[in-house]
Amino acid sequence: MLIRSTRITRDTRGFSEIVDLTTEVAAFVSDQHISAGLVHIFPIGSTASITTIEYEPALVQDMEELLEKIASRTMQSHHSQTWGDDNGFSHLRASLMGPGISIPVENGKLVLGTWQQIVLIDHDNRPRQRQVFVQLIGE
Amino acid sequence: MLIRSTRITRDTRGFSEIVDLTTEVAAFVSDQHISAGLVHIFPIGSTASITTIEYEPALVQDMEELLEKIASRTMQSHHSQTWGDDNGFSHLRASLMGPGISIPVENGKLVLGTWQQIVLIDHDNRPRQRQVFVQLIGE
Amino acid sequence: MLIRSTRITRDTRGFSEIVDLTTEVAAFVSDQHISAGLVHIFPIGSTASITTIEYEPALVQDMEELLEKIASRTMQSHHSQTWGDDNGFSHLRASLMGPGISIPVENGKLVLGTWQQIVLIDHDNRPRQRQVFVQLIGE
Repeated sequence: MLIRSTRITRDTRGFSEIVDLTTEVAAFVSDQHISAGLVHIFPIGSTASITTIEYEPALVQDMEELLEKIASRTMQSHHSQTWGDDNGFSHLRASLMGPGISIPVENGKLVLGTWQQIVLIDHDNRPRQRQVFVQLIGE
Repeated sequence: MLIRSTRITRDTRGFSEIVDLTTEVAAFVSDQHISAGLVHIFPIGSTASITTIEYEPALVQDMEELLEKIASRTMQSHHSQTWGDDNGFSHLRASLMGPGISIPVENGKLVLGTWQQIVLIDHDNRPRQRQVFVQLIGE
Repeated sequence: MLIRSTRITRDTRGFSEIVDLTTEVAAFVSDQHISAGLVHIFPIGSTASITTIEYEPALVQDMEELLEKIASRTMQSHHSQTWGDDNGFSHLRASLMGPGISIPVENGKLVLGTWQQIVLIDHDNRPRQRQVFVQLIGE
């Protein structure tokens, strides 16, 4: 049994920009030469989420619009009023969706549907350099 | 330490039909004769989710109605307009809820509340044969 | 490789009260003296969730208000009408958010952002004594 980790760094624009991490996660898993296990992908910070989506531009736009409907960038929030950083909506989107996800590994490969990609969603209200922690447990 | 997996296959109707998987997951865990661990239940594909719910018909109907309110089957979506498959809402529901969940195992049994069942929600807009990947790590 | 678990018990008020568990989870992980691994935090029961949030009072209030907007405590539900326990909204909030989350462990410490705390959200409609199961897999 083996535990291995890495960090993926990405420059993001925020406002729920959706970034495909599948290739990097798959390459990391492949490099560890395990047969079976679980890989966990975790966003460091309280204004980002990880989920899966069919990563194509029209759906990415739909998802950004849905999040805008659930917690708008123009909403009044106690957080923004108290701290003046105007990103209450970012925190709410992140906490509602939850932080990391786990993906099974079988025969050394991620178990994913053909149209199912692993994505980081950066909900913050400004460009950032994001860190995603990737932890693999397997044998 | 041991890693074991199985696939659960289910015929589903879609439109966020909610299917109880608890018995099958519990039987698989029991068959592995581990003492402690973690079991991960993961839906293969980008239009399904796994969560827990009190699995009784009235609440199942409430959950389907809540998802209809969040992203209606009649909503306009860029995804549906671009690809013509009319299931933009299905993807949005799945990505918002997220894919898999993990359940702890203690003394060989799933740690769940009495009224807490493991369910697959198939958000797609047509009948499908769904595959759920179940991965157990334990000792 | 080692698997260790504990239960955290908390008295809660319900109505999506948000309770910070970070100190207790971090202390449990620290006590196991592992180097790397994954800790899973799981709410036992179908009317509670675990997520991460910047735990400060203004944002906590925003989150409670967002959940009230998504599934109000005054909503009509088939569940409440059938069973008379008036907590249909509690179940819906819990199932939408999903149950547990996993946090990576590196060099014996939780991998979290500075403003990212682990919280229990009790969505039920009455005071309860809540049990949260914490499962650590590591080496």
